[in-house]
Amino acid sequence: MIQDLPFDIARLREAYQNGEAAENVVSECYRRIRLADDPGIFISLRDEADVVAEARALGPFDPEEKPLYGVPFAVKDNIDVAGVPTTAACPAFSYNPQSDAFCVKKLREAGALVIGKTNLDQFATGLVGVRSPYPIPRNAIDPEIVPGGSSSGSAVAVSRGIVSFALGTDTAGSGRVPAALNNIVGLKPTLGGISSFGVVPACRSLDTVSIFSLTVDDAWSVYRTVCAYDAEDAYSRELASPGLSEMPPSLTVGIPDSSSIEFFGDALQAKSFAASVETLRRKGMEIVELDFTPFYDIAKLLYEGPWVAERYAAIRRVIETQPDALLPVTRGIISKAEAFSAANAFEGAYRLKELERKARALLGLADMLCVPTVPTFYSVSDLKNDPVGPNSNLGTYTNFVNLLDLCGIAVPMTARQDGRPGSVTLLGGAGRDAFLASIGAWLHHDAKVSLGATGWGLPEPAKRLPAAQTDEIAVAMVG
Amino acid sequence: MIQDLPFDIARLREAYQNGEAAENVVSECYRRIRLADDPGIFISLRDEADVVAEARALGPFDPEEKPLYGVPFAVKDNIDVAGVPTTAACPAFSYNPQSDAFCVKKLREAGALVIGKTNLDQFATGLVGVRSPYPIPRNAIDPEIVPGGSSSGSAVAVSRGIVSFALGTDTAGSGRVPAALNNIVGLKPTLGGISSFGVVPACRSLDTVSIFSLTVDDAWSVYRTVCAYDAEDAYSRELASPGLSEMPPSLTVGIPDSSSIEFFGDALQAKSFAASVETLRRKGMEIVELDFTPFYDIAKLLYEGPWVAERYAAIRRVIETQPDALLPVTRGIISKAEAFSAANAFEGAYRLKELERKARALLGLADMLCVPTVPTFYSVSDLKNDPVGPNSNLGTYTNFVNLLDLCGIAVPMTARQDGRPGSVTLLGGAGRDAFLASIGAWLHHDAKVSLGATGWGLPEPAKRLPAAQTDEIAVAMVG
Repeated sequence: MIQDLPFDIARLREAYQNGEAAENVVSECYRRIRLADDPGIFISLRDEADVVAEARALGPFDPEEKPLYGVPFAVKDNIDVAGVPTTAACPAFSYNPQSDAFCVKKLREAGALVIGKTNLDQFATGLVGVRSPYPIPRNAIDPEIVPGGSSSGSAVAVSRGIVSFALGTDTAGSGRVPAALNNIVGLKPTLGGISSFGVVPACRSLDTVSIFSLTVDDAWSVYRTVCAYDAEDAYSRELASPGLSEMPPSLTVGIPDSSSIEFFGDALQAKSFAASVETLRRKGMEIVELDFTPFYDIAKLLYEGPWVAERYAAIRRVIETQPDALLPVTRGIISKAEAFSAANAFEGAYRLKELERKARALLGLADMLCVPTVPTFYSVSDLKNDPVGPNSNLGTYTNFVNLLDLCGIAVPMTARQDGRPGSVTLLGGAGRDAFLASIGAWLHHDAKVSLGATGWGLPEPAKRLPAAQTDEIAVAMVG
Repeated sequence: MIQDLPFDIARLREAYQNGEAAENVVSECYRRIRLADDPGIFISLRDEADVVAEARALGPFDPEEKPLYGVPFAVKDNIDVAGVPTTAACPAFSYNPQSDAFCVKKLREAGALVIGKTNLDQFATGLVGVRSPYPIPRNAIDPEIVPGGSSSGSAVAVSRGIVSFALGTDTAGSGRVPAALNNIVGLKPTLGGISSFGVVPACRSLDTVSIFSLTVDDAWSVYRTVCAYDAEDAYSRELASPGLSEMPPSLTVGIPDSSSIEFFGDALQAKSFAASVETLRRKGMEIVELDFTPFYDIAKLLYEGPWVAERYAAIRRVIETQPDALLPVTRGIISKAEAFSAANAFEGAYRLKELERKARALLGLADMLCVPTVPTFYSVSDLKNDPVGPNSNLGTYTNFVNLLDLCGIAVPMTARQDGRPGSVTLLGGAGRDAFLASIGAWLHHDAKVSLGATGWGLPEPAKRLPAAQTDEIAVAMVG
């Protein structure tokens, strides 16, 4: 029964192998959209008939030629899809792109099918998912808590099994926080690994497209499809995206020490993270406790420092001519940029350079970091009472990451006692994406959680390459 | 006769080997200062007796222990020397450093002797050397032309044979333009190769200490002494400084093409550069003509774009509380920063990233670039008539270099028909310092010019390593 078919790429491919038709998968996808009955997920949904026609045009199943044959996906509405408006959740900003973003083009060439454009915190500014003029998507696991943002619709669509994967963007955590809040995988690649051509900038020097999926293998398949140097994007880099590998024989993992770890009083979250760390330890990994203060100091620069001016520069036309077109909370944040001079911007860069020294020294003590993806959970009504504080808190373990040019992957872990999803994020240096994904896949399988909000179990992992040496240096040819 | 002793390091070392005493060299150095009769060279001169005492304290000649034993040098007055005020050519800004700058400390540990602090364009802002409240140093070759800046006093002191070498700084060309105008070598290392600890910033993200000397071998000896990672400087990098090598068997050299080369109507300068290029060609190098427009577009960002805000940030205290303490021309340039917002700063960074793509594509077509160090010459009275225009023109071939993270070396070439010095600058990617210096030394020897304004001939070159492959990639471990 196609109604029960898990939409992870492995089982979708198996179904195609067994003769399933892509157009039926598309129809099932739209059936699931109707079933979800959540007008907040998509800002624009493509006509089902158009996608069915596209599915038919794929021809017979050919996984060599089209590795993402008939894989339905959703696109955050700050990434261009030709013929569908890009709103960035601000109708006044909306425009009609003539061509696909670089990454969307790559995915379509690989056989994947765009279903629609998903809701987000306006201009990708937020980690909560409630800062949108459109209906707010319901969290797929627990409608009381926020869906997470800024890539709210993308995460919910994946968690509900509507699409196999979804594109998000991640500047401050928008590709990781919603993954944690919806029990799915969130891959935040090294900056420049995915071209930003056709993507609305948030902080252009710190943005990346991100990938939400049900399994790490799926996120990695998608990443390998879109990771490519693009001469059109000045921030694009040549990065490798090899296959995932076996677990290395030994591994040193840095975690926040007891004096710097922060859960904002959420004892269940502390317990959940402690259990994850215990898993790592049980598997023979060496745990190193680090004072996270330098990371937090770097995080503060992102919203309290001059980087907010990048957000201003990105939407200068709208904020200067139609300030009322912005949500008050978004306008409040972005207009802070007006107080920063160019001298302040450089002073911020100096401060970052100095803090980076301390942070790099800590990073040098471990093969990777492991942090709780979110320190705690907030309800939709928490955000009504205070639209800023909970949002800031949610970025505790995400805000510093792009300023330090790290890559990361958020993976679901065993649920908490109250049923809320567990999640850790693995972090490493630029170009270490495959290494982190390999460990992440292994952790996800070990946790034996079901996928998103679907109840589906994890499929068998894909084949692995032999374990890489943990001291292997990722080669990042910076273009 | 010590009065005739050339102060290049090779011949100074030979004299020490033959029993000369360091204190006599110091006395000779002060004799030459008196002989030069130019109150514009030094802002602070150390007491001769103190330096003599320091020379005596060196003990017997030991080139292994002290590779710069008894080598007299001068320090640009924006670099700290313990116990001597640092003015940056602005008395109101002056402070009394308690310790030596990192590079000065390294040089003293190697046996070199600080003689004094040299004049500069105020806050290292300028390429002319006439923007100082102190007497203006006279150009050592032709008193009619400007001494060049901002490291004016350092270049003149070396050109006159007063000291063996001098430290300068170079953000926009301050370590190359005065070298060209005074017939000496100007080494502008890769950013981060020399620690900026104890150096007054100009544009902190783009500054480097630079080295003036009579020969390339001397500049390289000094660089090897001071090139070291320094944890105290957030912009410091781990860079290699191997010995110089033989000429590679083949070499591709990029030069500005006929449509983009700029001499501001100076036919003699055009002829001089053409002769230098002819030398390269005669030696079997392949010449590639490149459209320099992207480099010029990058250059414009430095003074017309938001980077001027770095200069503002560096002297914020003085410019905000005592603006009249600045020279009007300097205040006029730096106060332009007030018009730039943080958003402008980021927009400038984006623009640079985009132009960088084009520039890197050009750089990829050659093993190195060769440019005229200066496009033409200006007289002191030219600058009285227009304190800004000629200054900008002098930076034609220097302003873009640090924005692109290139390294460079200015070397004297055959004098022009009117007796003004010839000079080319070789430019290459970060970490290619040794490669460029090797070629530069060879060119300098080929030109058979006399050293600075001294009339001394070039000593025999030091031993060379076998030729490096031109496609060898310089390894820059970025800390």
